[in-house]
Amino acid sequence: MQPSVSQALVVLSGGQDSTTCLYWALDQFGVGAVEALTFDYGQRHRIEIDCAIKIAARAGVPQTVLPINTFTALGGNALTDAGIAVQSGVDAQTQLPNTFVPGRNLIFLTLAAAFAYPRAIHHLVTGVAQTDYSGYPDCRQATLQALEQTLQLGMACDLTIHAPLMFKSKAETVLMARDLGAWPALADTHTCYHGQQPPCGECPACVLRAKGFAEAGLADPLVARFHSSPS
Amino acid sequence: MQPSVSQALVVLSGGQDSTTCLYWALDQFGVGAVEALTFDYGQRHRIEIDCAIKIAARAGVPQTVLPINTFTALGGNALTDAGIAVQSGVDAQTQLPNTFVPGRNLIFLTLAAAFAYPRAIHHLVTGVAQTDYSGYPDCRQATLQALEQTLQLGMACDLTIHAPLMFKSKAETVLMARDLGAWPALADTHTCYHGQQPPCGECPACVLRAKGFAEAGLADPLVARFHSSPS
Repeated sequence: MQPSVSQALVVLSGGQDSTTCLYWALDQFGVGAVEALTFDYGQRHRIEIDCAIKIAARAGVPQTVLPINTFTALGGNALTDAGIAVQSGVDAQTQLPNTFVPGRNLIFLTLAAAFAYPRAIHHLVTGVAQTDYSGYPDCRQATLQALEQTLQLGMACDLTIHAPLMFKSKAETVLMARDLGAWPALADTHTCYHGQQPPCGECPACVLRAKGFAEAGLADPLVARFHSSPS
Repeated sequence: MQPSVSQALVVLSGGQDSTTCLYWALDQFGVGAVEALTFDYGQRHRIEIDCAIKIAARAGVPQTVLPINTFTALGGNALTDAGIAVQSGVDAQTQLPNTFVPGRNLIFLTLAAAFAYPRAIHHLVTGVAQTDYSGYPDCRQATLQALEQTLQLGMACDLTIHAPLMFKSKAETVLMARDLGAWPALADTHTCYHGQQPPCGECPACVLRAKGFAEAGLADPLVARFHSSPS
């Protein structure tokens, strides 16, 4: 396989954070040097993948959707198992939300590195953040640093993991998205854990998103979209 | 999910090394404290999985076969892509064999950790070795150490990766298998890159295996099986 012209690969979920990161990467590496990778891992709501496809197309970046059927086979989590209800709190024993797939971001980034390897792409971009930390230890800076070293050693390649939102609050991320020109794209993102459009506004993900826009003093273009054009 | 009684999870491919490690784990952690995890990742030869199932059953350990459809989707390697011939040498550009799936063992071990997590299993056992290093950087000790740290941080858990063959030659592994009582099980293992039974004896994997038994001064029970009972 010939090396591509792309320099950076963005892990694009179709959510607000990874979409903002896509525009960060376009700003950082330039239009034509960025690709997007979306995982079809059996998420409860296919709408996330549809959003990611729409967002990549709008941004004009090549996109690949890679399947992972392993999480569903692992089972036992609310993120992919439709038989398990999403809970708002954390598990008393593990202190983790029941949408936790252990090491999910480690898997995503390692597969992203495997995808990047033959394409000679040396920069991975992920939207994880430890500021609005939901109890996911694979979103922490220390974890990403260890993973970066692991990938460099395990693939014998020069690879950098960028997490531009790592230390930003949701409000700061909202302002960053606006400044990077990601605003129209945010209307195409998906956040709601219940998979609803318009978003339910009540699940932990919707609440966290609304809080960020409120603190930034800006209206969420996703919410505005449904208010201005009734479905 | 209730914690299992297992203490150790062996990544069992159905090959000689992981089978030896299964018996190492039984010796180390005790019968009844060991489970096996086998990945169905679209390997060219399903016989590997059949061997792993037979080996786990013979050893009396619970086994799970987890699917990974991502490697096939990534494509471009001889290990899963039937359209690409296995080459004996290394690629001039990458200096890696064309059976190389970048970071394959990183993926296997991370998914093994995700499998182990809800079962409260804290020991992962892998048959990788850097001695008979085939150009796979994800088989090196330094890589496993970095990965262990990544998994500990990323899953916020106490986890140890054991690679009992890391610094052993193939001959030493053969002697270890004999001493651990793995000898009958070795007759059920699969090594041949061409998926042949009896083994082709000519592919790099067969040649490496034969060299180990020759240096140990012992006959390979897999080869003996076909000589004593013509198929």
